[in-house]
Amino acid sequence: MVGCSVAASSELSDCVLPYVPGLHAYTPGIQPVGPGWVKLNTNECPYPPSPGVVEALTRELRDGGAALRLYPSPTSAPLREALARVHGLEPSQVFVGNGSDEVLGLLVRCCTGAVAPAGFTFPSYSLYPVLVGIQDGAAVSVEFDRSMRLPVDRIAGSKAKVFFLTSPNAPTGVGFSRQDIARTLETFPGLLVVDEAYAAFAQEDAVPLLARHRRLVVVRTFSKSHALAGMRVGYALADPEVIGWLDRIRDSYNVNRLSQAAGLAALADAAYYDQVRQKIIRTRDAWYRDWTGRRAWFAYPSQANFIFVEPRDRLGRTGPEVARAAYDFLVSRKVLVRYFPSHALTASFLRVSVGTDDEMLVLHESLDAWLKAPPAA
Amino acid sequence: MVGCSVAASSELSDCVLPYVPGLHAYTPGIQPVGPGWVKLNTNECPYPPSPGVVEALTRELRDGGAALRLYPSPTSAPLREALARVHGLEPSQVFVGNGSDEVLGLLVRCCTGAVAPAGFTFPSYSLYPVLVGIQDGAAVSVEFDRSMRLPVDRIAGSKAKVFFLTSPNAPTGVGFSRQDIARTLETFPGLLVVDEAYAAFAQEDAVPLLARHRRLVVVRTFSKSHALAGMRVGYALADPEVIGWLDRIRDSYNVNRLSQAAGLAALADAAYYDQVRQKIIRTRDAWYRDWTGRRAWFAYPSQANFIFVEPRDRLGRTGPEVARAAYDFLVSRKVLVRYFPSHALTASFLRVSVGTDDEMLVLHESLDAWLKAPPAA
Repeated sequence: MVGCSVAASSELSDCVLPYVPGLHAYTPGIQPVGPGWVKLNTNECPYPPSPGVVEALTRELRDGGAALRLYPSPTSAPLREALARVHGLEPSQVFVGNGSDEVLGLLVRCCTGAVAPAGFTFPSYSLYPVLVGIQDGAAVSVEFDRSMRLPVDRIAGSKAKVFFLTSPNAPTGVGFSRQDIARTLETFPGLLVVDEAYAAFAQEDAVPLLARHRRLVVVRTFSKSHALAGMRVGYALADPEVIGWLDRIRDSYNVNRLSQAAGLAALADAAYYDQVRQKIIRTRDAWYRDWTGRRAWFAYPSQANFIFVEPRDRLGRTGPEVARAAYDFLVSRKVLVRYFPSHALTASFLRVSVGTDDEMLVLHESLDAWLKAPPAA
Repeated sequence: MVGCSVAASSELSDCVLPYVPGLHAYTPGIQPVGPGWVKLNTNECPYPPSPGVVEALTRELRDGGAALRLYPSPTSAPLREALARVHGLEPSQVFVGNGSDEVLGLLVRCCTGAVAPAGFTFPSYSLYPVLVGIQDGAAVSVEFDRSMRLPVDRIAGSKAKVFFLTSPNAPTGVGFSRQDIARTLETFPGLLVVDEAYAAFAQEDAVPLLARHRRLVVVRTFSKSHALAGMRVGYALADPEVIGWLDRIRDSYNVNRLSQAAGLAALADAAYYDQVRQKIIRTRDAWYRDWTGRRAWFAYPSQANFIFVEPRDRLGRTGPEVARAAYDFLVSRKVLVRYFPSHALTASFLRVSVGTDDEMLVLHESLDAWLKAPPAA
């Protein structure tokens, strides 16, 4: 793989695996610095975490932060146990990671190589191909058509050893039924990773299927539904054998002390998060009706905390130029949404995270202003 | 690599890369639960972090923890900038990770494969071979002899593409001179990673060599010297090209918001950490003199925050049985140290983290009791 000459004057580039310098890192949504931004671009929760989270973190800081000098639980054992209780599973079926991104990366590393392809749909979470590239693995992409219905048969025939399915999908927000997931498990012979980052906002989830399907992995995160994107806590639910693979290859202390405490405290306040979830769903559905009704814009029915919407300009046109113009206008108003220009299935759309009522009003006033603005040169 | 059959009834084991189930995870030192333990087994700082750390974390929690709902800086940019200032480097020469373990793992992943071996000395940080195994990479081990002098020529001839050198060494505590590191850089043609987890307690470090050697990577951690093992913050200093490799393969948001804040606050209170460091060095040197003088035990001169010592029983004997007996006796007294029984170079020794004065007194009283106790059956 590398042809590093045996002379101390060798080049730096001789020391790296040859594919690494050519990798393209994942591009996260912009994290603007400074005040005044309406940030609807990375699907963060618009509401703060449970007051219990701050209380728990403050407790961890007592005695001058003396506990911070000690390593955390290497296995995040208390959090695994609490998650097992919440989901009606055994702790041996739970893995906790430094955000669900770490969990997804570890799953790729367990299963993917040059002759062991990883699969994913397009569009879906654009991190998957990046993770496969990092592993120098083969990738199989299964494209949706504009209906965004789950292409079960094409997944089954994809020859992937592991398949990543975002459900509800990102960036479309389309939810897949438990029945469709079950059908996929029955026909696809590899490991099926159902990335349920947005499951809190959906009608169904795949967790009950774990009882019957050993090749199912459900991945969750505290980032969206639990308002803890800043803390990096995600987890996997799976067969103990799969959990064992992840434990063999993770960092020894992959989740820090405060993140473990924050996750535990969040789980303990289900009532608060239930209210937050219901509020986000109400806001989402109200604006979905407004967009598709009053404005007559197309949007996919969303089961997530964002809406994938196709802007229509003052002349009634849609398309990549229109979406780009709307995006740019919003940025000029300090309203950030997400735009994925690289593919026909996404280039005419904007992905808008569901914010507070105030944030959504600013967004819609900005869109009104865009519709009234003279066309750009 | 995998022979996953194309039938939905395939086995779970068909979905994983074949080497993964056979991996052995790194065994971290015991993290005891419950009170009463004197914990001298994982080289944590015996003193709390700077008061500025708790202040900074408390600030991050204001407004009901509202900031926690937002993703952190994906690049840990403010912390990279602060570290660059501290070390007199450019931010482009700094990488921040979720503990130095993540940094080491990423370096292995950049450089190591089946035909691109990673090298390390034995003994040294026992995580390295685990990380190489996770990458299914080839490994080259260069053994010290009992002198623990750096075998520069054997490293140069090791054929490794990347070599991990713990300096000061763990578990021996022996420091290597900057001149020896420079000689290694001049003769070893691969990437030399100097793991300076314990550099704060040493007489010299390798950072000044970065100005002349592009193939040098210096890895540091906030866990030991900055009393933040619980927060998981580590970093690499290297050529911008190497930093670019790491940035291509890390998780997008690898360091959480509070860990970044803790690292920044710790850097801002150099005076506090200077006192802590000097106190630990004084304690270490006093007990080193006591062990090697009054007790006439052999110990390596330590430039770290621990001492690698060869216990001598009441009959004057040393050896693996003696070290094991001392270890077990200490555990029975709720005093935890670290014992590495698997190799002749380490099996007669105990690695004792430098604790507070009180902790060190309990340790030494326990050793006195061991020396007076009747021999085990």
